[in-house]
Amino acid sequence: MSWTITASDIEGLARGAAVLGTGGGGDPYIGSLLARQALGDGEVTVVGLDEVPDDALVLFVAMMGAPTVMVEKLPSLDEVIAPVHALGVQLGRPVTHIACAEVGGVNSTIPVVAAAALGLPVLDADGMGRAFPELQMVLPTLYGITASPFAYADEKGNTGVLNTIDNSWTERIARVALVEMGCSVMMAGFSMSGAQARESLVSGSLSRCVRIGQSITEARDAKTDPVSAAVELLGGRELFGGKVVDVQRATTTGFARGSARIEGDGGAALTLGFQNEHLVAESDGEVLATTPDLIMVLDAESGEPITTEALRYGQRVRVIAGPADERWHSEEALAMVGPGYFGYDMPAYRYDGTVSEASAAVAR
Amino acid sequence: MSWTITASDIEGLARGAAVLGTGGGGDPYIGSLLARQALGDGEVTVVGLDEVPDDALVLFVAMMGAPTVMVEKLPSLDEVIAPVHALGVQLGRPVTHIACAEVGGVNSTIPVVAAAALGLPVLDADGMGRAFPELQMVLPTLYGITASPFAYADEKGNTGVLNTIDNSWTERIARVALVEMGCSVMMAGFSMSGAQARESLVSGSLSRCVRIGQSITEARDAKTDPVSAAVELLGGRELFGGKVVDVQRATTTGFARGSARIEGDGGAALTLGFQNEHLVAESDGEVLATTPDLIMVLDAESGEPITTEALRYGQRVRVIAGPADERWHSEEALAMVGPGYFGYDMPAYRYDGTVSEASAAVAR
Repeated sequence: MSWTITASDIEGLARGAAVLGTGGGGDPYIGSLLARQALGDGEVTVVGLDEVPDDALVLFVAMMGAPTVMVEKLPSLDEVIAPVHALGVQLGRPVTHIACAEVGGVNSTIPVVAAAALGLPVLDADGMGRAFPELQMVLPTLYGITASPFAYADEKGNTGVLNTIDNSWTERIARVALVEMGCSVMMAGFSMSGAQARESLVSGSLSRCVRIGQSITEARDAKTDPVSAAVELLGGRELFGGKVVDVQRATTTGFARGSARIEGDGGAALTLGFQNEHLVAESDGEVLATTPDLIMVLDAESGEPITTEALRYGQRVRVIAGPADERWHSEEALAMVGPGYFGYDMPAYRYDGTVSEASAAVAR
Repeated sequence: MSWTITASDIEGLARGAAVLGTGGGGDPYIGSLLARQALGDGEVTVVGLDEVPDDALVLFVAMMGAPTVMVEKLPSLDEVIAPVHALGVQLGRPVTHIACAEVGGVNSTIPVVAAAALGLPVLDADGMGRAFPELQMVLPTLYGITASPFAYADEKGNTGVLNTIDNSWTERIARVALVEMGCSVMMAGFSMSGAQARESLVSGSLSRCVRIGQSITEARDAKTDPVSAAVELLGGRELFGGKVVDVQRATTTGFARGSARIEGDGGAALTLGFQNEHLVAESDGEVLATTPDLIMVLDAESGEPITTEALRYGQRVRVIAGPADERWHSEEALAMVGPGYFGYDMPAYRYDGTVSEASAAVAR
């Protein structure tokens, strides 16, 4: 089912995307500003995966880099679509639909910006059902869809196009390039047919973001608990509540890496490990949840999602968890996005605290 | 005047290019191997700048990266022309001539390899009249000719194309990419018309390499002094003779950087500073010559040129210097390739020990 997105939907979309972005994906406020500017009084058609033609040409458009930096470098409309233009004739035929590589503050609204600027529809779908820090970490990689031809562009006017032997090489080369270019770029890639999109993407992502964002707003207005509303929509659970007492953060090799410690009222504490996104939640030696399931930090009262770069000492927060798209729990997927990949020596724990079945094989 | 180059010319070409390469440009033996393989029993036409049509489309093809590494990664013919193919339709029309970005062991023979593989002529010219370590350091940069569209390719099958706002940005982005890709790549770029080539390139480079290489061989055969023969052809002077007693070398950020100390019989010593190429020659506190003029190290007896990565303790060597293309002595050029750019706090000294006139303005 298709619907239209207008400037008035953006606040809900960005807030919901910031929840599903699990701490990454950049500042939703920045993404909202851009999207409102691009939409103006107009609208962008959002096409469901059930309606996209098999022979459509779908393209991911996203921001890549450390969201910490993007907060200070608001991209222009020209910059957002520069990588699409840089691909030029390499796609062989015109792009028909823009899609989100991930959900997450900026990267749910950037595709809307690109779609508005290019006069194209956007898919109600994304490549992860959450946010992940590296380029190859999208479900299409598991379906053999290549990131190449892959384009990136900075705000200065520099562009690059990569054709690599696999998606991890696209990540490696684009990552060092973007660090040199100022730690964030706009990207376009992972061109795929409508049929491939239907098979490989997570369906309904933008609708879900808007629904989660609106439910938080509605709960606030109704003086009910916004965090509980989000947990219910996610089908997840609340892990912990308390005060942020320590945040270690460094922007290294183009990522915002670090950890945060949250102390509860009863003396218990929760530690979060992150690389752009929250990856591991531990409390008193017990792992409560890990990547690929979703770990999210919300303001305790307002339910406002808090990105990893916005975590600050003294914030009263609640940490919640929810299930990832089940395809992330295959052995191959866990090798790509499980805790072991990020250097955590543990199996993958689902949002409910159980060990992901395929995880034993890839844990290190 | 055009001439043809066959496999039998390669030894002389590579040896002469290694002399003019001032220590950089990679192992001439590696370049020779590849060129002989590409030429087989065939030949490549070498076209003088006086004969290239104004509307020719000239393209530089070269190896970029740390020559230290290339010694261990002999590129295939496919890899050499991969960046040309990666440029695809971006040049707007077919390439008509291949040219050398620099003279230097590998980078004088790689264009011959590309020309043979593509069935094109090569220009009797190059972009520097010597070798320099960074991409933007070619005379065409001084003429406003852009490196973009610029392509690079590794031996694994990864390719990238850059379109940047200036040639220094091409260098910056390509440099970090090639470090990630294994410290050396093949590149193609600086597309220019025949008229631009005639204006901006150094004329007669390949002929000069062959002539220098042959004169060294002939002097050996005639039991005369090969080093003196090279000095005479270069119009230069001999700076120092002695034994290599210390070499400091590190491959960092894609370059082979370091210094070497050579002790003479009388107790005097000469210090060479290099970044891929020899940049500064000092003796007992006196600067004898610096970039952009040519500083070359030859085997004391055989006259065989010794690259910076082949410098070893105990070698008996003679250090010679010769004049660079005069355009390298302009104020703008010295800002790009003078000693100050490489971190040496001194003006540029010509091969004859005098200070380059425009140098006071850019020394730091």
